[in-house]
Amino acid sequence: MSTPGSASVADLGERRIIADIRAKLLPAPAWLPIGIGDDAAVVEPERGALEVLTTDSLVEGVHFDRRFSTAFDIGWKALAVNLSDIAAMGGRPRVALLSLGLPPALAAGDLDALVDGFLALAREHRVVLAGGNITRSPAPLIVDVTVSGAVRPRRVLTRAGARPGDEIYVTGSIGAGLAGLRFLEQSSGREPADAEIAACVAQYRRPQPRSRIGALLGSNRAASACMDLSDGLADALRQIADASGVGIAVDGEALPIAPGARRWFESAGMDPVQEALAGGDDYELLLAVPRRRRGRLTTVSRQSRGIPLTRVGQATAEIGVRVVRNGTAEPLPAGFVHF
Amino acid sequence: MSTPGSASVADLGERRIIADIRAKLLPAPAWLPIGIGDDAAVVEPERGALEVLTTDSLVEGVHFDRRFSTAFDIGWKALAVNLSDIAAMGGRPRVALLSLGLPPALAAGDLDALVDGFLALAREHRVVLAGGNITRSPAPLIVDVTVSGAVRPRRVLTRAGARPGDEIYVTGSIGAGLAGLRFLEQSSGREPADAEIAACVAQYRRPQPRSRIGALLGSNRAASACMDLSDGLADALRQIADASGVGIAVDGEALPIAPGARRWFESAGMDPVQEALAGGDDYELLLAVPRRRRGRLTTVSRQSRGIPLTRVGQATAEIGVRVVRNGTAEPLPAGFVHF
Repeated sequence: MSTPGSASVADLGERRIIADIRAKLLPAPAWLPIGIGDDAAVVEPERGALEVLTTDSLVEGVHFDRRFSTAFDIGWKALAVNLSDIAAMGGRPRVALLSLGLPPALAAGDLDALVDGFLALAREHRVVLAGGNITRSPAPLIVDVTVSGAVRPRRVLTRAGARPGDEIYVTGSIGAGLAGLRFLEQSSGREPADAEIAACVAQYRRPQPRSRIGALLGSNRAASACMDLSDGLADALRQIADASGVGIAVDGEALPIAPGARRWFESAGMDPVQEALAGGDDYELLLAVPRRRRGRLTTVSRQSRGIPLTRVGQATAEIGVRVVRNGTAEPLPAGFVHF
Repeated sequence: MSTPGSASVADLGERRIIADIRAKLLPAPAWLPIGIGDDAAVVEPERGALEVLTTDSLVEGVHFDRRFSTAFDIGWKALAVNLSDIAAMGGRPRVALLSLGLPPALAAGDLDALVDGFLALAREHRVVLAGGNITRSPAPLIVDVTVSGAVRPRRVLTRAGARPGDEIYVTGSIGAGLAGLRFLEQSSGREPADAEIAACVAQYRRPQPRSRIGALLGSNRAASACMDLSDGLADALRQIADASGVGIAVDGEALPIAPGARRWFESAGMDPVQEALAGGDDYELLLAVPRRRRGRLTTVSRQSRGIPLTRVGQATAEIGVRVVRNGTAEPLPAGFVHF
């Protein structure tokens, strides 16, 4: 953007903002006959596929703090949380809509960086920005994103398919999002010197949604149920158990807690297992895998470029989610609460 | 909702809010295999159709004032502005996502009424609520809606198809949205005694998007270009002229100004034509119709249940939008400014 650094979005005006965003876009694919600039976008559905449609927003003061995250981080994360939802359904993302509520005093350079962060992740995941909306917001910065993707019929991963005996897996590692946020809250904006804690902060700011592994799980039907961890592992365990009508026995010692998170929680006198279960802001996937499909899961693991898949428990006929550690049952913490 | 009147949304919590909304829904159609309650909705695209996708939000203090609009009105209008965009593309709406940013102190009854307003309009237009998102907002109430619809290939109405000689039409009447808002601002919440001004206030609060006429215009190819008037007639004229590479000569005396609006602007010492051109909050359609398709427009008019279609001008080879009244050229006011 060729705007002087001191300009605000109110100085730019809506037309200029939209023109600046359009100038950043790659040429539209043939299946997007109408993108930004008309009353609505027009998308050619993928032949033979179902559409997966989700929306999620980040609100300043609730989901992010501009002392902890740059504008680039915020744009990135606003898309990431939606891509995570598409991945959790076994879909592949195709187009995104970006709806912005901008405080008039927001620096033009910050808006520019926010859009850059959004588009950087969009390019990594081959998602096309197809439209959106820009409005004034009296106070908080609001970033509301909609993502549409494609999934094959009978390849949709819901929360409801787990059966007793299915093994429960988690992708990647957990606890990093929460540990990263807690570090930032207590460090008054200082960046971490420790590399493992820095990794937690980075994951809090710019989570990597599991698009590839989600699409692989959908297409090879390894999983019987799937959900993302945006509201924490404890919440996801409960949701899958409830929707599937099963219980889940969780092995508290098996949780793949990020090393920096484990260390940070311990140094703060907190229990890493309970914290990682409560969590939130981990954009990993929780999945149920029937034993007879374990081979398919191995294939997914091999094709997913080294993303760990850790077995953390098992679905049971007995209802309820139970965490067992050192042979003792533990309470399951509540998930992230939006209110 | 069976909540005591004094409860706030913070008392209800997210789960309860979602459960209450789900309880209000009609059974999902077969083409919506997964609606509210999973990571994302799954929609079966309409066979042979393209998808039309739009998002638009209402922010408290910017797009509405809770002294002037009830919660029911706000929910209604948040969907209406999106349906208007789908209509302007010649599409038929199918599903909506509702993303809410709720101040914790918002009364549970207000949220209930907001959802009722949204669903009342959704039912009228056969739109299915398929998902969304609920989050806390530190201050303003935010209602962000996404609507997906269907349109046949080669039936899409863009802003770019007008050619010199095409006649320019407007549906319904204009100026009512702005006059209704201005009345409310100056009346300190008193309701209008005058029936025609009451009609303007009603149109401001609960606009009727032109879904039927938009879909008809798309399917019979009467129009060469189309756009809605959400940012005012002057803005729409400029946008269609710019996108189509034509000029437009507007007959200032022909504008279908709502009787209440005309009277209200005159009594306030303002020029009704200039006010109706600047406008905003009129959810009518502006369309260009090639002369040889005038017969098709008559068919649309007949099938659209008495919604007036008024010829307000003509596309010209000479670039620029010109308003002529009593033989004299007038300046074109700016459209609604979002910043």
